Amino acid sequence: MKRKICVVITARPSYARIRSALYAIQSHPNLELQLIISGSALLTKFGSAIDFIREDGFSPDAEIYHMVDGETLLSSAKSTGLAVIELSSELEKMKPDAVITIADRFETLATAIAASYLNIPVIHIQGGEVTGSIDEKVRHAVTKLSDIHLVSTQKAYERVISMGENPSSVYITGCPSIDIAKEVLENPDMDFDPFDKYKGVGNTFDVASDYLIVMQHPITTEHYLSNEQTLQTLSAIKSLNIPTFWFWPNPDAGSAGISKELRRFREYEGHSNIHFVINMTPKDFLKLALSSSCIIGNSSVAIRECSFLGIPAVNIGNRQFGRERGNNVIDTNHDASTIIQSIKTQLNRTDIASEHLYGDGYAGEKIADILATCELRIQKTLLL
Amino acid sequence: MKRKICVVITARPSYARIRSALYAIQSHPNLELQLIISGSALLTKFGSAIDFIREDGFSPDAEIYHMVDGETLLSSAKSTGLAVIELSSELEKMKPDAVITIADRFETLATAIAASYLNIPVIHIQGGEVTGSIDEKVRHAVTKLSDIHLVSTQKAYERVISMGENPSSVYITGCPSIDIAKEVLENPDMDFDPFDKYKGVGNTFDVASDYLIVMQHPITTEHYLSNEQTLQTLSAIKSLNIPTFWFWPNPDAGSAGISKELRRFREYEGHSNIHFVINMTPKDFLKLALSSSCIIGNSSVAIRECSFLGIPAVNIGNRQFGRERGNNVIDTNHDASTIIQSIKTQLNRTDIASEHLYGDGYAGEKIADILATCELRIQKTLLL
Amino acid sequence: MKRKICVVITARPSYARIRSALYAIQSHPNLELQLIISGSALLTKFGSAIDFIREDGFSPDAEIYHMVDGETLLSSAKSTGLAVIELSSELEKMKPDAVITIADRFETLATAIAASYLNIPVIHIQGGEVTGSIDEKVRHAVTKLSDIHLVSTQKAYERVISMGENPSSVYITGCPSIDIAKEVLENPDMDFDPFDKYKGVGNTFDVASDYLIVMQHPITTEHYLSNEQTLQTLSAIKSLNIPTFWFWPNPDAGSAGISKELRRFREYEGHSNIHFVINMTPKDFLKLALSSSCIIGNSSVAIRECSFLGIPAVNIGNRQFGRERGNNVIDTNHDASTIIQSIKTQLNRTDIASEHLYGDGYAGEKIADILATCELRIQKTLLL
Amino acid sequence: MKRKICVVITARPSYARIRSALYAIQSHPNLELQLIISGSALLTKFGSAIDFIREDGFSPDAEIYHMVDGETLLSSAKSTGLAVIELSSELEKMKPDAVITIADRFETLATAIAASYLNIPVIHIQGGEVTGSIDEKVRHAVTKLSDIHLVSTQKAYERVISMGENPSSVYITGCPSIDIAKEVLENPDMDFDPFDKYKGVGNTFDVASDYLIVMQHPITTEHYLSNEQTLQTLSAIKSLNIPTFWFWPNPDAGSAGISKELRRFREYEGHSNIHFVINMTPKDFLKLALSSSCIIGNSSVAIRECSFLGIPAVNIGNRQFGRERGNNVIDTNHDASTIIQSIKTQLNRTDIASEHLYGDGYAGEKIADILATCELRIQKTLLL
Repeated sequence: MKRKICVVITARPSYARIRSALYAIQSHPNLELQLIISGSALLTKFGSAIDFIREDGFSPDAEIYHMVDGETLLSSAKSTGLAVIELSSELEKMKPDAVITIADRFETLATAIAASYLNIPVIHIQGGEVTGSIDEKVRHAVTKLSDIHLVSTQKAYERVISMGENPSSVYITGCPSIDIAKEVLENPDMDFDPFDKYKGVGNTFDVASDYLIVMQHPITTEHYLSNEQTLQTLSAIKSLNIPTFWFWPNPDAGSAGISKELRRFREYEGHSNIHFVINMTPKDFLKLALSSSCIIGNSSVAIRECSFLGIPAVNIGNRQFGRERGNNVIDTNHDASTIIQSIKTQLNRTDIASEHLYGDGYAGEKIADILATCELRIQKTLLL
Repeated sequence: MKRKICVVITARPSYARIRSALYAIQSHPNLELQLIISGSALLTKFGSAIDFIREDGFSPDAEIYHMVDGETLLSSAKSTGLAVIELSSELEKMKPDAVITIADRFETLATAIAASYLNIPVIHIQGGEVTGSIDEKVRHAVTKLSDIHLVSTQKAYERVISMGENPSSVYITGCPSIDIAKEVLENPDMDFDPFDKYKGVGNTFDVASDYLIVMQHPITTEHYLSNEQTLQTLSAIKSLNIPTFWFWPNPDAGSAGISKELRRFREYEGHSNIHFVINMTPKDFLKLALSSSCIIGNSSVAIRECSFLGIPAVNIGNRQFGRERGNNVIDTNHDASTIIQSIKTQLNRTDIASEHLYGDGYAGEKIADILATCELRIQKTLLL
Repeated sequence: MKRKICVVITARPSYARIRSALYAIQSHPNLELQLIISGSALLTKFGSAIDFIREDGFSPDAEIYHMVDGETLLSSAKSTGLAVIELSSELEKMKPDAVITIADRFETLATAIAASYLNIPVIHIQGGEVTGSIDEKVRHAVTKLSDIHLVSTQKAYERVISMGENPSSVYITGCPSIDIAKEVLENPDMDFDPFDKYKGVGNTFDVASDYLIVMQHPITTEHYLSNEQTLQTLSAIKSLNIPTFWFWPNPDAGSAGISKELRRFREYEGHSNIHFVINMTPKDFLKLALSSSCIIGNSSVAIRECSFLGIPAVNIGNRQFGRERGNNVIDTNHDASTIIQSIKTQLNRTDIASEHLYGDGYAGEKIADILATCELRIQKTLLL
Repeated sequence: MKRKICVVITARPSYARIRSALYAIQSHPNLELQLIISGSALLTKFGSAIDFIREDGFSPDAEIYHMVDGETLLSSAKSTGLAVIELSSELEKMKPDAVITIADRFETLATAIAASYLNIPVIHIQGGEVTGSIDEKVRHAVTKLSDIHLVSTQKAYERVISMGENPSSVYITGCPSIDIAKEVLENPDMDFDPFDKYKGVGNTFDVASDYLIVMQHPITTEHYLSNEQTLQTLSAIKSLNIPTFWFWPNPDAGSAGISKELRRFREYEGHSNIHFVINMTPKDFLKLALSSSCIIGNSSVAIRECSFLGIPAVNIGNRQFGRERGNNVIDTNHDASTIIQSIKTQLNRTDIASEHLYGDGYAGEKIADILATCELRIQKTLLL
């Protein structure tokens, strides 16, 4: 009798953080994979991650639309509520033996709530890390709703236990996103034309030469600053005049403001060297990152995967506040001139090597093995 | 400019656990009370707690219906989702400076989520305690979503800080339910006829003589055992043949099973000495408890308020597992004969005095003072 | 390739109105039955119609909980909204070739909306009839959302066409509930003990002697009168002092008021001859009706099935205003003395014969044949 | 005591169809205006109609986010369900004496359902018209849920009565959108720079010379054809090479496909003469239309307001099938060459005069007068 493991993928980045585990679960003799795709992973305007998931050979068992339009604080809250309603119906039907929820987004919390109330064991990936934004609250709340914790780092392991979780329920597996980074390091060839494959808007340029990547999301707890924060980064990139791939932001509150600013800039101050892209497959993205000169913004990918890849990163503002980082990261604030300065510093560095801070590239297999053998229970008691 | 404090009351017991604070907030010169009543507190079949709230002089600003019928695990999950949707709309309109969420129920979690996503500071009452059931997960998840923690006991204080909360955001206030217990101890006169005022079903008896109180709720994580667990307690009470007030259960998963069992018993094995009641005002209930010989079941009131009142309690099963308890409590399992034995033991005890485990009776005022002066913020970082 | 016909059953009476068609669809060589059970048909307190459906040999493909608790106008509205959300997810997955929606309740409307927006042809059973209450609005709104109309009477047929529907999409099939009545007429033996099989509360009596049946639901458009209306009927029945089966009301707004009144009456004015029952299988209910002396209240069953059975009925108030009725019905208003008078009149009648107003007992087969062959489309144009 | 009239505006075009009535209600001595803005009227990507509403001097009493992202059939269904849930909460609080719902969109149906179940009289604007798409079903379903009908044309009046509505509840008022057209005809000066005021994307051109307007929405019942239908029109416009304002589509199922096609075209086949705009105030839009050479697509504005303005219109496909039209309209199918031919024909016409088919420009005042004096009831009976 195989254990049925239901994985709920709710967003573009969530897929990267579970992909290698999906393969490992699928091919494990004692596990059966159930796959739910929901949230922004289904939406065209966020790059339809579901298409990449299908291309990778997975067949979603259910698609759940629950994003309430608006990209405001209020719509995030309502999207969470609707996700709980819809996911609980679905999980009740699927009857998995355990549900995996990933990281720290509102859909993550919805998954944990739905499964908890249905008495299904909750397995959390990426607990115990520290950042800014609402993510910080959500991540630890999910830890408290979860029964098994698969963490990425030693520090995360210690924190989860310090919060009162039973040490026997906490495992260091590393982050599955690093597994993709390892694949990419081993086979770094950029075997696709990013302009042709991913379209996007803006001029094209020669990817054999130097280029930058920008990925900057809103910070929900300071969403009203999103426009100004975006302008500062835009101004820095424009001034540097280096070819740049700029990724549209995720659907958090403040996102509409960022997108508007980007569109306005594009239309009226267009700088011939920026190409705007919605999304790429996790692997293609890391190949693009590996060949880039520097990654700028506030995405965790700059801190996690790029520390493994050894790519310089300029991390702007509070979103990643407190997250463990390697030698590849320089932190800066939302000011065009300091951003420029930080990027210039990074472009000249020669001391950045691959670090194994978030794993060694074997997370997927470790996760599948744990899932196949760990004790699954739904009762727990604070050990404090 | 007064601080607007929004209190969300979702259930019968929540009201007792905040009532004295409501008075203190309402009369505080620097605070303005906003009151939302929702969940089972609105429903006739759970005793319409909203009527008692109005009788006490409070005027709810909003009533929110979000309970999905069924009293199953699935309907609890959906009720949580619908509560998030509805509460977020309401909070967005009310624009409070902070939101108070009480204890550890699914509606509590919904309140915390709605407020968190709207960037409204969340104040949690009764964090840091330990119990069984899904409540244990929910309570600590709410702690991680909350910005200010108003706890009842020293141990709870220590636990909340151990979980990584900033000590400057944690306050020991005692439980406001104890404030009512103090009022009742000072004025113990049973100045109402419980049969006349609260109707209910079943024969009446003389409340000047000995009587018992039973209050037994489902345990969500073992909801399928609810019927059998109820039968054991019913059998014990029948066998003891002492007049008994029996309170209908709360709306958690398993509740329909308990109610059905009670109705069946009543119809076909009716024991002339059990009177079934839905609900009482917090004060009347404690007066009834104070005059009783013993309180039986798995309600926290037996452990919290009754330790202050010095009333013997027989606590059955896992629901209160791990909760700090005083000298008044004897624990037992779901077995009729051990329940009988435990009750008999309690009826003979003479060593039970009032204990101040959950507060000294001044929680309401302390809470109002803290609310008026504490720093309100929405950003926090795990201190671990 | 069989046509997949999805039937959504939302309430106790809906089942009786489709049961024979379910059998006919299931056994038809060109049809495949998909069955969704939702709403009050799932709820213990409304008699768990789903249990009867299973006993009859059907296996529901999905169960949808969407009833928001409260039994108020507001909770009916919300239940409708939640039903649309949940049903649309389910229908999207099931991908039926057509969806059957029954009669005129809010869940009926939700089914029609969900299917319409998903471009699935909607087939409506029981359109074109006229009554009071909100049902009157809902029924005709469902007609306008529906693509195929399977009506019970010639008048209903004419009305649906007069409303602008294409005559080629309207069929007179009679009501499937009459098919059960025909079975019962042919085999009238009361082969069960109603007290033993259906429990209920209140004294038992000899069903071989005379007894009455009362079935009185709230009228949503005058829901605030429910208590008083109930009292008048209670008073009439008490005064007549004839053994009576009294059925609890459906979950419309006003229902909680009726139930409260019934419970209060039972507890404090208990009349030894009333037995309160929640629900019976459609067949058992009609057997009970066939052996009864008179059916009282405002249920459509008194007008539809009982005209076929030839059972005297006293119809009280506006709920059935405008519905075609046979010789078996006397109408009266909400006044105890006129109700008593009407019942007495009915008890003395000898002129009531079986009438085929709502069908001849072959509706199920006719429906299946139409479903197998009719043109299924989703585009329509008002023919006016 | 003023009558409280609640108007629910859910979309960009709904505002134009009620604007003059809002002014008339607001200034009527016996009426009080309550204004709810919801749906796409709140969303940036659909042009934030709420901003225009505020600029016109109205203060919304509530904003309701209920659009589930995806622009699919399923998301339309879910958006309807969520709208019912949210609107019913809001209407319960506002307690209007009547609710106005406009035209034939899913949000329109949600408004009618919420109000009906709350026993609030429903007033429908624009009933009795005939078109294609799901709108045709929805419009007539709303008629059956409504208590008062304010129609635009004599034919619509007759149709509503033929459907069984009481003639005393049906009034011909003309369409309030014509009131704006009348203002514009009287003061046709284009007193704004459309490029400067409404930004948009694409090249600018001289609006004193000839230009076209395109407004083409998805047809929900043939949504899978949206891309191809869009391509045909794009191809026709490109080939004609006349400067063109192209408006982005509404949020119906198929909309994402249209937008994607437009963006792709813009990026890769960009024609220097197309300027893409999201939205304009109703008045500015009609001024733009009045100065245009022809309006192309499938919007009702081309048929309603433009017949009053005397502007040639090319109506493509089935969306407006059956709608009464004037001399200004030529119908064509989704084929580039016939579209080109039709536009050329229209550009040469000299026989188009203002027609009063949808009203004479005084609808707002007539509506306010009716609202102030008509009998408001919630009980109705089919008159057939």
